[in-house]
Amino acid sequence: MNFPCCGSIPEVAPGATTPDTREHIVIVGGGFGGLTTALALRNVPVRVTLIDRHNYHLFQPLLYQVATAGLSPADIASPIRGILRRQRHTTVLLGKVTGIDVIGKAVLIGERRVPYDQLVIATGARHAYFNHEEWERFAPGLKKIEDATDIRGRILVAFERAENSGDEQERRRLLTFVIVGGGPTGVEMAGAIAELARRALATDFRNIDPGSARVVLVESGPRVLAAFPETLSVAAKSALERLGVEVRLGTRVSRCGADGVIISNDWIDADTIIWAAGVMASPAAKWLAAEHDPAGHVLVERDLTLGGHPEIFVIGDTALFKTADGKPLPGIAPVAKQQGAYVAQVIAARVGRRLAPASFRYRHLGTMATIGRKSAVADFGKLRLSGFIAWLIWGIVHVYFLVGFRNRVAVLMGWLWAYLTFERGARLITGHDL
Amino acid sequence: MNFPCCGSIPEVAPGATTPDTREHIVIVGGGFGGLTTALALRNVPVRVTLIDRHNYHLFQPLLYQVATAGLSPADIASPIRGILRRQRHTTVLLGKVTGIDVIGKAVLIGERRVPYDQLVIATGARHAYFNHEEWERFAPGLKKIEDATDIRGRILVAFERAENSGDEQERRRLLTFVIVGGGPTGVEMAGAIAELARRALATDFRNIDPGSARVVLVESGPRVLAAFPETLSVAAKSALERLGVEVRLGTRVSRCGADGVIISNDWIDADTIIWAAGVMASPAAKWLAAEHDPAGHVLVERDLTLGGHPEIFVIGDTALFKTADGKPLPGIAPVAKQQGAYVAQVIAARVGRRLAPASFRYRHLGTMATIGRKSAVADFGKLRLSGFIAWLIWGIVHVYFLVGFRNRVAVLMGWLWAYLTFERGARLITGHDL
Repeated sequence: MNFPCCGSIPEVAPGATTPDTREHIVIVGGGFGGLTTALALRNVPVRVTLIDRHNYHLFQPLLYQVATAGLSPADIASPIRGILRRQRHTTVLLGKVTGIDVIGKAVLIGERRVPYDQLVIATGARHAYFNHEEWERFAPGLKKIEDATDIRGRILVAFERAENSGDEQERRRLLTFVIVGGGPTGVEMAGAIAELARRALATDFRNIDPGSARVVLVESGPRVLAAFPETLSVAAKSALERLGVEVRLGTRVSRCGADGVIISNDWIDADTIIWAAGVMASPAAKWLAAEHDPAGHVLVERDLTLGGHPEIFVIGDTALFKTADGKPLPGIAPVAKQQGAYVAQVIAARVGRRLAPASFRYRHLGTMATIGRKSAVADFGKLRLSGFIAWLIWGIVHVYFLVGFRNRVAVLMGWLWAYLTFERGARLITGHDL
Repeated sequence: MNFPCCGSIPEVAPGATTPDTREHIVIVGGGFGGLTTALALRNVPVRVTLIDRHNYHLFQPLLYQVATAGLSPADIASPIRGILRRQRHTTVLLGKVTGIDVIGKAVLIGERRVPYDQLVIATGARHAYFNHEEWERFAPGLKKIEDATDIRGRILVAFERAENSGDEQERRRLLTFVIVGGGPTGVEMAGAIAELARRALATDFRNIDPGSARVVLVESGPRVLAAFPETLSVAAKSALERLGVEVRLGTRVSRCGADGVIISNDWIDADTIIWAAGVMASPAAKWLAAEHDPAGHVLVERDLTLGGHPEIFVIGDTALFKTADGKPLPGIAPVAKQQGAYVAQVIAARVGRRLAPASFRYRHLGTMATIGRKSAVADFGKLRLSGFIAWLIWGIVHVYFLVGFRNRVAVLMGWLWAYLTFERGARLITGHDL
């Protein structure tokens, strides 16, 4: 279906009939950064337009659970219009941004121009294949809902094909799952696939033993979860190995095809390959013709604005913000949310002609990653946890931050059910022809 | 993704190493009929293979709620392997049947042959366009999960496009929804779309009033729900009209295009057209070269077998079984389930060399249809109900018959949430490009 770019276009404005003299704040992206900005502008006397390609805000940290049949897409996605419904000065616009007219101060959606007074770019990141874009069809990444249902279908179809295959070597290939990248997504996917095979599917088949599935996690660095303290990397690795995951450190993928991968000169026959190895910022740097790092992150000032353009903010996974010690901030939800809140503060101060905090400061509250249904690692600075306690905290924190009461209850119910029965309720193969 | 038809194919048999001399019962189709047959064969000393194109059993009566963003696909679909997991003599085979070798007694899945001793065909029905197959792309029907998520996307995208359109006539067209067919599916879809527009989306937009959406239900006969007593048809029509649905009786669609439909020489500009007007049995009649009615239903004997082939049963929506008064049985779940149970009884009797009941007899327990969130009609023979009480019974019955505890709880939670808040949680546009 195509989105029509109509000839005559209405000014994006709330239903007001008198001309609206309030400043127009345009936010591009309804992820953690953009949505937080919009919500934090609730009581600020401006007009707000939030533009996104999708009609929902996606709670990305749980996307791997959709990919492994634990949750349904609607459990972790909430319509943006619903979230901002009561904020009458805010308009949600479904559209795919194609560029920005920095001089004319307008966001471009194809032929359509959305003029702004101040602009917030929060367009996130996508997977990067390091100049091997041809690998994407063999090794999909996990960023969108469609990615997750596609990966779910691939994993489940692999088991179905193995059940139907009479060839032992082919079965081995079908029951081999390679996850490339040992960051949180890779670790969580590897753990969840291992558990799916050994638990949820354990007695489902008659010709194969799903428990014999081989799950290989490939990481080029010396340890998994490189952003975590070393003790937690070690704990995560053992937890994965207890689930039967083969963790291959210090190895790189040098080829990727329909039949398998080559890692460090070693050919692995594999039907399902999942890419969790790298991200690339959205094309915002190109739109803005701005200074950026090789991964496309836009270099921003201390107040998250673009150099020479105080009216343009860039936040979240799209931005390159260096902390006092010169390190860039990680591409995680808390960074995006704190930046969104900060930007709203700056905008409110400007509109109210008050002094804004001159510099954004990130408060690191902690990071977590889960491994299967009983284990996790959590790093809260001085407090470092692993195992069951970390898993409980992980669950509470993730449900707490989920947007929307219904989603929280649905996710909790789903987890409780999965925990008590080892079942995975969302085991549907859709959109995959036989 | 293609399903490989491998060179060497394993005999479909449970893990047993000694040759299995039990009769092999092959069931084609995991809908209400096929699944009931498989479950009812639980304690019968045979081998069972159930073949389906999908890996899940779909609770079709609630599919319209997925199409109107009330439920998630996984809420009404349950993996067939999971349901039959503990039945060790039953194998589930994911595959698309392409024909049947009646002489050689084998089901064909492409190049693969699955031999049977007794065969149960329960392949259901699909939509029929009465020699206007070209209408399908403009007016999709509602049979599969993919249909439901496609229709959900079309409906939601129509509102989004209307919000973005500056042209009043175009907005009217985008906000017009035509449902063709006044049977239960058509009535339920019309009611659910009207409620979605007037309630769930009421305050979501800034440039349009979703409540102004026009919902037209077109029925060629003199009343909606023709299979129900006339008083209930009247009640259903008023309930629909109270929700703002335009009910057009005695009218036929004579053209169907991307921009709208012609009904009884009347052109209606409409962006979304939904087909609920007719069904066509699966190609089973062709596979069997059997006698059938124009809609493809296979004529069966009193014991649901194919004439001259006592080893082949045809049940559910695929069969044409005439009752004593010469009327065919309706294509509804209770008929399929009772037929499945009867066939299992016959098979058990044959295997045990006992006498089987000579003729299938349908016990009509009642039919129901729901209109929006507070109204329904229910026909239990002498007892005929409409309104809120009927709606409560409808809800209890449908949740009761849902397969799987988790699905029941998930659906109940979703409904309770929707009932209390008028919200629709599954309002996701996926797989639709902008």
